[in-house]
Amino acid sequence: MPNVTQKLIAAHLAEPEDLPAPGEQIALTIDQTLTQDATGTLVMLALEAFDPERVATEVSVQYVDHNLLQADERNAGDHRFLRTACQRYGLWFSPPGNGVSHPLHMTHFGRPGATLLGSDSHTPASGALGMLAMGAGGIDVALAMLGEPVRLKMPEVWGVRLTGALPDWVSAKDVVLEMLRRHGVRGGLGRVIEYHGPGLDGLTAMDRHVIANMGTELGATTTVFPSDETVREFLAARGRGDDWAEIGADADATYDVEEEIDLSTLEPLIATPSSPGNVVPVREVAGEPIAQSYVGSSANPGFRDFAVVAEILRDRTVAPGVSLDINPTSRDDLRDLSAGGQLAALLGAGARLHQAGCNGCIGMGQAPAVGRNSLRTVPRNFPDRSGTPDDSVFLCSPETAAASALTGRITDPRDLDRDCPAIAPRPTPTAQRDQFHAPPDAQDAREIEIAKAPHIAAIPKFDELPDRLEPAVLLALGDDISTDEILPAGAEILPYRSNIPEISRFAFRVVDDSYPARAEEVRDDGGHVIVAGENYGQGSSREHAAIAPRYLGLRAVLARSFARIHRQNLVNFGVLPLTYDSDAAPPEQGDTLRLTGLHDALAARTPVTAETGSGHRLTLQPALGAREAEIVRAGGVVNWYRQAA
Amino acid sequence: MPNVTQKLIAAHLAEPEDLPAPGEQIALTIDQTLTQDATGTLVMLALEAFDPERVATEVSVQYVDHNLLQADERNAGDHRFLRTACQRYGLWFSPPGNGVSHPLHMTHFGRPGATLLGSDSHTPASGALGMLAMGAGGIDVALAMLGEPVRLKMPEVWGVRLTGALPDWVSAKDVVLEMLRRHGVRGGLGRVIEYHGPGLDGLTAMDRHVIANMGTELGATTTVFPSDETVREFLAARGRGDDWAEIGADADATYDVEEEIDLSTLEPLIATPSSPGNVVPVREVAGEPIAQSYVGSSANPGFRDFAVVAEILRDRTVAPGVSLDINPTSRDDLRDLSAGGQLAALLGAGARLHQAGCNGCIGMGQAPAVGRNSLRTVPRNFPDRSGTPDDSVFLCSPETAAASALTGRITDPRDLDRDCPAIAPRPTPTAQRDQFHAPPDAQDAREIEIAKAPHIAAIPKFDELPDRLEPAVLLALGDDISTDEILPAGAEILPYRSNIPEISRFAFRVVDDSYPARAEEVRDDGGHVIVAGENYGQGSSREHAAIAPRYLGLRAVLARSFARIHRQNLVNFGVLPLTYDSDAAPPEQGDTLRLTGLHDALAARTPVTAETGSGHRLTLQPALGAREAEIVRAGGVVNWYRQAA
Repeated sequence: MPNVTQKLIAAHLAEPEDLPAPGEQIALTIDQTLTQDATGTLVMLALEAFDPERVATEVSVQYVDHNLLQADERNAGDHRFLRTACQRYGLWFSPPGNGVSHPLHMTHFGRPGATLLGSDSHTPASGALGMLAMGAGGIDVALAMLGEPVRLKMPEVWGVRLTGALPDWVSAKDVVLEMLRRHGVRGGLGRVIEYHGPGLDGLTAMDRHVIANMGTELGATTTVFPSDETVREFLAARGRGDDWAEIGADADATYDVEEEIDLSTLEPLIATPSSPGNVVPVREVAGEPIAQSYVGSSANPGFRDFAVVAEILRDRTVAPGVSLDINPTSRDDLRDLSAGGQLAALLGAGARLHQAGCNGCIGMGQAPAVGRNSLRTVPRNFPDRSGTPDDSVFLCSPETAAASALTGRITDPRDLDRDCPAIAPRPTPTAQRDQFHAPPDAQDAREIEIAKAPHIAAIPKFDELPDRLEPAVLLALGDDISTDEILPAGAEILPYRSNIPEISRFAFRVVDDSYPARAEEVRDDGGHVIVAGENYGQGSSREHAAIAPRYLGLRAVLARSFARIHRQNLVNFGVLPLTYDSDAAPPEQGDTLRLTGLHDALAARTPVTAETGSGHRLTLQPALGAREAEIVRAGGVVNWYRQAA
Repeated sequence: MPNVTQKLIAAHLAEPEDLPAPGEQIALTIDQTLTQDATGTLVMLALEAFDPERVATEVSVQYVDHNLLQADERNAGDHRFLRTACQRYGLWFSPPGNGVSHPLHMTHFGRPGATLLGSDSHTPASGALGMLAMGAGGIDVALAMLGEPVRLKMPEVWGVRLTGALPDWVSAKDVVLEMLRRHGVRGGLGRVIEYHGPGLDGLTAMDRHVIANMGTELGATTTVFPSDETVREFLAARGRGDDWAEIGADADATYDVEEEIDLSTLEPLIATPSSPGNVVPVREVAGEPIAQSYVGSSANPGFRDFAVVAEILRDRTVAPGVSLDINPTSRDDLRDLSAGGQLAALLGAGARLHQAGCNGCIGMGQAPAVGRNSLRTVPRNFPDRSGTPDDSVFLCSPETAAASALTGRITDPRDLDRDCPAIAPRPTPTAQRDQFHAPPDAQDAREIEIAKAPHIAAIPKFDELPDRLEPAVLLALGDDISTDEILPAGAEILPYRSNIPEISRFAFRVVDDSYPARAEEVRDDGGHVIVAGENYGQGSSREHAAIAPRYLGLRAVLARSFARIHRQNLVNFGVLPLTYDSDAAPPEQGDTLRLTGLHDALAARTPVTAETGSGHRLTLQPALGAREAEIVRAGGVVNWYRQAA
């Protein structure tokens, strides 16, 4: 009677022997890994530090999709570093220009039934194929490449039964926006979302990708779909029918949490600034003027997502003053859009065509003007993620983006005076395999010299956690602080990702730009802690949001709860995650804490009592498993792995 | 018996009445203007300062093609500023995504027989249509919009007679590279290059654009072609046959300088780092490994330039580790490449497709890795222009770029084992006029509010030139200093172009990064001068290379000779251009000069005697016409125009 999630977990369970109850620690073997360039340079530096003969996974793929602007020499130097490191260690390499990791991985490498660990928070998108696909920090992905199981808490399985069929003008994006409307950005914490039911029949594999991708915005561990006939057709059309296997929930499967969505009742939805959780019907904000309409990203990556925009705009032109930014997700799809005439329709309407990749979704260009509304089909609209201070970004479906580009105002596509276009599936979608560079065989790989550009610096060495600390409270923050606020991405900052001292200058810039200087002042004098509310570290998986503050002397984070990947990243770099009771008053910015007996508390994972400068006492619980406690004590996973090896 | 150049000049001569001898001052009426966004924001700020009711030209077009990355909010804010300023003052606006100004202007607005002044040094490209098209500083272009004639010295006309036909694998780019091989980057100073002869028949209008475009690299005032049957066909195919007029040299026309190129003797050529003047046959450097092959820019903008690359690469893939960057010149051509299947061939070979625009040609992305060779079809390879320190950029034809992308090494395309592809002309090339925004009528224009983003600062006010100066010699430089060295472009710096105090921090960074600080030290204490050799200020027309040093206290430049546009820009911002004899020893860095009696010397345009701190004396000649002397004395053209108005 297991559901799909339980089947996938059971098939990869390294520890314990049997499926435990939700909340218990489990360890899963990993079949495949995915890394992208923004997090991948650090993964490769870690791999170099571990120096394995060759990766132990079924397949590991390094994608270049984030840093494509090459405003200076660093991006291109990183690309070469990644390519040669892949050759050395036996990874596939996807060069710049191929497109975004998630749809590429699903299309070219994804396999129903496999586990996938990726150093990108949207890795769950491959759950569309009946995979267990999870985001993690880069160090965890590096360890998975070496054959280490990944550890997490057994999630609750949240069964979402879909019935009915989507009405005209409503598409997959609106399904996941409905989930966010109902449950917000914390609704999925500690859960795997599993979709099932008769409504699935109307959703293509790429539609399911859209929904699985943005499950991340609910805070879910991942999202899972069954591997059914739809998945078989998806793989077969790309010459990969042999990789298909059927995986469905048993007829009498149960779920820890149950939910139902009648697709026929949905309407076009939109997330207003500046959280994916602020979802309302499009009609509620219709009429607001816009300056940008942006189509693309892994949250609407399919051929169909661009084709529907092309049909809505065919033989019309966008409103003056609106920048219609088309960001193709892959070179494969761009070829098909070109061959099918959709590209000509988009260009004729006045579209700007950008290179295939993540681009503005992660602040890599296409920043809107100050004070102007931007509509985007991307997964996130956290503050300043677009690259513009105090930005005003809305998240919506391609249909809504296209309708609004035509009118120059936020527009429910149902209010356009035309028929909803039908998009026919492509009989033979382009899926060019030779655009990936296969790794050389093991013998040739040994001869490869890794090319390291001068700007690439080794990962700093961190000290062990002392038994006693007297850190300053440098920041006291609220709920739902995202990694975009901890360490912004964007074209100015991400190029420094291979150089921790450099990138740390940007930590918390959005929140408090005095933080780096204040942290450096006390770095050698007890270091500092950060205090936060619920769901600390939501959003992107970027582990620079852990390393950069750590480099500046962060020793512990006190929060009511942590986002899963960020907590893991803190552990991996030797920062102690501590939780405090919801009725306790947290310390304030400017306080000093005294923490003693840390080594014993970590060994037993018992509460620590912190004393503030004013004598106030607070009970803190280490948010750690046993192995994680060892890692934090060692000063991070690199130290820990070396001690163990 | 006039040649084409003389006819064009005679038809626009405001002063004197008859064509004078080369070297005499002339004033020409301007029919059309072109501005791009990198220089255009300053032009619009100047226009705002002058505040005319409406531009007085036949047509003025503002293109957005440089700052397309939008890594932060400033680019999009500038685009909006430009669009609303165009509406207010009666200019056409070409929004981001349309493509590069030069081929767009030639295609949509160029008119045989007209004069065109553009705030971009490659404006001469429209000379391909039988226009007199010249680059200038933005302030000069703003004045031209108000109806002011442009002043320059009557150029020599350099007749280049073309005979024969280009062999297989040799194309227009190799013609202008041959000119650069013969004459270097100063060969065209004070001259208009006029092509004539039977060899013209084999060159399309867009081929001629390639040659006219890079006439700028020879230092020429402009390049001129006749308006013949080829031009008529070019315009007629785009629905503009009525704009055609025949303009040819009289049968007995003579030229001040004569030259001949037998096209059938040419071979593939390449400019080695880091000057367009370093031209050698491709075979001389063949075999060097490359990391990048870059196709695009106004120096190879034609459909044919991309189509030939597509045919060379069709059904093949580029060498691993080579980034093949395709930069479409216009949305029009991108549509045709898509419809014709060339785009699919390029993508199938592994190309990265970038947005239509100038992009990496001006350091806006696509910077190569350190120490790696980049082959480009762009017009310039001045040091660091690519965005990479100590870059290694070669300039070549699309055929050479494609052949080298295939092999991963610099390759003469004749050494590929295949037939030279023939590219058929398009019967009906796309030329979408509604992608430009026409200005509203005069009455509606008055209602337009110009939208100025917070980062846009007014042009600083500059003081009059004092009668007596004691400036420090802050830099003593060699020959051929380019504006890329004076004020670099690129993605980091150009976004500051609407804010002079900010952008001045980058002045001379490539040459001596202590310059801004040293200049500020003496700014209120006599200011400073710069000493240089021949051809000071070659390259891009960007007037920030004059304004930024002026803002930092530059009062005079002492050079053996000046590049035409930069000298004019210095004058426009009140910097005194002075020449010294070739046998005189120039002052050294660290010297102080004493300059007295400047007002009298300017009024009479007589030499100034400068005394150095060590008592050495040097005779300096103001490189100024009478009106220019008034402008420098007034502290620049804004002050001068206001005093005159």
